[in-house]
Amino acid sequence: MMSVKIIGANVPNMPWQDRPASDESGLPLWRYSENPIIGRSPAKGVARIFNSAVIPYKDAFIGVFRGEQTDGVPYIYLGESKDAIHWSFRPDKIRFVKEDGEAFMPNYAYDPRLVKIEDVYYIIWCQDFYGASIGMAKTADFRTFTRLENPLIPFNRNAVLFPRKINGKFMMLSRPSDSGHTPFGDIFLSESPDMEYWGHHRHVMSNASGNWWENVKIGGGAAPIETSEGWLLFYHGVTNTCNGYVYSIGAAILDRDHPSRVKYRCRTFLLTPQEWYEERGFVPNVTFPCATIHDAQSGRIAVYYGCADTYVGTAFTTVEELVDYIRANNQISEMDAEEGVR
Amino acid sequence: MMSVKIIGANVPNMPWQDRPASDESGLPLWRYSENPIIGRSPAKGVARIFNSAVIPYKDAFIGVFRGEQTDGVPYIYLGESKDAIHWSFRPDKIRFVKEDGEAFMPNYAYDPRLVKIEDVYYIIWCQDFYGASIGMAKTADFRTFTRLENPLIPFNRNAVLFPRKINGKFMMLSRPSDSGHTPFGDIFLSESPDMEYWGHHRHVMSNASGNWWENVKIGGGAAPIETSEGWLLFYHGVTNTCNGYVYSIGAAILDRDHPSRVKYRCRTFLLTPQEWYEERGFVPNVTFPCATIHDAQSGRIAVYYGCADTYVGTAFTTVEELVDYIRANNQISEMDAEEGVR
Repeated sequence: MMSVKIIGANVPNMPWQDRPASDESGLPLWRYSENPIIGRSPAKGVARIFNSAVIPYKDAFIGVFRGEQTDGVPYIYLGESKDAIHWSFRPDKIRFVKEDGEAFMPNYAYDPRLVKIEDVYYIIWCQDFYGASIGMAKTADFRTFTRLENPLIPFNRNAVLFPRKINGKFMMLSRPSDSGHTPFGDIFLSESPDMEYWGHHRHVMSNASGNWWENVKIGGGAAPIETSEGWLLFYHGVTNTCNGYVYSIGAAILDRDHPSRVKYRCRTFLLTPQEWYEERGFVPNVTFPCATIHDAQSGRIAVYYGCADTYVGTAFTTVEELVDYIRANNQISEMDAEEGVR
Repeated sequence: MMSVKIIGANVPNMPWQDRPASDESGLPLWRYSENPIIGRSPAKGVARIFNSAVIPYKDAFIGVFRGEQTDGVPYIYLGESKDAIHWSFRPDKIRFVKEDGEAFMPNYAYDPRLVKIEDVYYIIWCQDFYGASIGMAKTADFRTFTRLENPLIPFNRNAVLFPRKINGKFMMLSRPSDSGHTPFGDIFLSESPDMEYWGHHRHVMSNASGNWWENVKIGGGAAPIETSEGWLLFYHGVTNTCNGYVYSIGAAILDRDHPSRVKYRCRTFLLTPQEWYEERGFVPNVTFPCATIHDAQSGRIAVYYGCADTYVGTAFTTVEELVDYIRANNQISEMDAEEGVR
C-alpha cells in the first residue's frame, strides 16, 4: 500500500483520541467520546453554535462560529481554545468593516469557513446579497475583519476556500442554489487572481453518483487538505426522506494542480447521523463538516462538524486510514473525472 | 423639457416607420405594421426564430438569432439583412471554437445578445454549464466565433453586456435564476477587467416595484443605450396568471458612471402582448426585447423583441418621447436607487 502524507504544518498539540476498541463500523472516522464539544446556550444571547470553523493560531486555536442568536438570526462569533476542544466565545458577534474602517455588517451570516493563505486569514460564509450568496472577509490579527467583494451573485449558500493558491490563483469551491431549500446541488470551482474578480469556473462533482446518501445535493465541507495524493475534501452529501433531509459526511480526492478533476470519490458516507446530538436538535439528522485540524507529521486529522444545527462535534481519522478507505471504495463518474467546462 | 440625446453612432439607414395616427395607447412604443418580421420555419431545420439580437455591420445589418431546431433544441444562427427588416439566415448554426481553433459547441444556446466594444463583437447567451448559465464568445468578422470563459456559475439564464467599458471595466447585467421556471428574479451588475474574471457584483433593480406587470421577475433586455440622461435599458418584466407567465417590455435609466444606481424606472410597461403574434405561439403572451438599432442624429430607436417564443417583432420610438414618458411615470424604490451592495 502506497503511503500518503499530509503536506502542511505540524500541529503536535492537536486534539486526538484513539479509535475505541468497540468500533466495528468499518468506517474510517470515529467520534470523540465527549461529543458534543459545544452544547446549547454557549454564550449570552446565543441559543446554539454549530457549522463552524477552527484553525491553529499561535500556540493555541481560534475559530469562527455560527452563533444562532436568540432572535433566530445567525451571525459569526469568535472563539478561542487552548486544546481545540474547550472553547470560549467573545460575547459580541464579529464586526466586519470596509477597507476604510467603516462598519459593514451583513444582514445575517452563517456557515463560516476559515483558511490561512500567505499569512492572511480569510473567512467565507453565506449572507444576504439581495438573495443568499457568499460573503468574504480577511483578517491578520482576529481583531479587525475587513470585508472583501462578494465573489458571486446569488444564489449560493455554501463556499470553501483552498488553503493556498494553485497555479498562482486563489481557489474556491461552492454549491449553486435556488432561493429555497434547494433540492439539487453540485460542487463548482472558481479561481481568482486577487480575491476581487472570479472566473475560470469549473464543475467538480455531481450529486448524481448513484449513491442514495448524496442524491439530493453535495457541497464542500472543510477547506481541502493537501496530501501527496491530491486535495482531500470532506464534503456534505444530502438525501431526502418523507421527514426531511439527512446530511452525511463524504470525502473525495481532487487533483493537486487541476482540482476540478476528481481522482477518487468515496461511494459511501464516512459518518452519518446516529448519535443523539446528531439526530436531535433544531434540524434533526444533520452532520455538516466545516473544518479540520491536522498534523503533517503524524497524519492525524480531527474533523469539526455541525450536529443537527445545534451542536459542534469532532471526529478523528488518519490520512493513511482515510485515503486507503477512499481508494478501496472509489467510484467516480466520467463527469467527475473531467475538467468540468462546457 | 430638457432635451435628451443618444450618445453613439449615426445609423441613417436604420428601419423606421412613423407612429400610426390611429395609435391612442398613450404608450411610447409603437409596433411595425408588417410584424412579425420573421415568421415560422425561417430556415431549413429551424422551426422558429425569436429572442434575437441585431446590430449595424458595414453598410448593412447582421445578427445572432435564437433558432429553435425541429428537434426542439435551440442554437444560435447568423442572419444578414440590408434593411434590418428582411433577414436571410446561414443554413448552419454558429460553430464556436476555443482559442486554439478546436470546436467547442455548447449543448444548447439561446437568447443571444450582441454588442460591439472596441472593434470586437461579443455574443452572450444562455447555455448548459452543468446547469443553465451564461456563455460568451467574441468575433471580429462574424466568421470565427471564439468562446470566452463562462462568466458565472449556474443558475442564470439572462445576461446583457454594456456596449462600452465603464470606468475601464466591461459591464454585464444578469438575472440569477433557479433550475426551473424561476418564480423570482432581480437584475444584477457584474464587472470585469478582462472578460475573463468577474466581480464587484451589485444589485441593480428588484421585481418588487409594486407594479403587477413585473411582480414575478425582471431581466435585462437590449444592450443599454447610452444617452445624455444615463443608460437607457429596455428590460422584460414578468407577471403570473392562472394560465402562465406574461412577459412585457419595460424601461429604466441607469446612472452613466455607476449603472447599479437606477435614476428613473418606468412604473408601466411600454408594450405588452396583445397582437396575434404576441399572444399565440409556442409560449403565448411573451414580448421579450433583446436588441435595439438606434441613430444618434435623429434619436430614433427600433426595438427587436421575441414574440411568443415564435416570431421576431419590431417596435419604434424616439429617445425624447421615451425618456419623457419614463420621467413622467418614474417610480423607483430606495433599493433600486442605492449602489446595491450588501
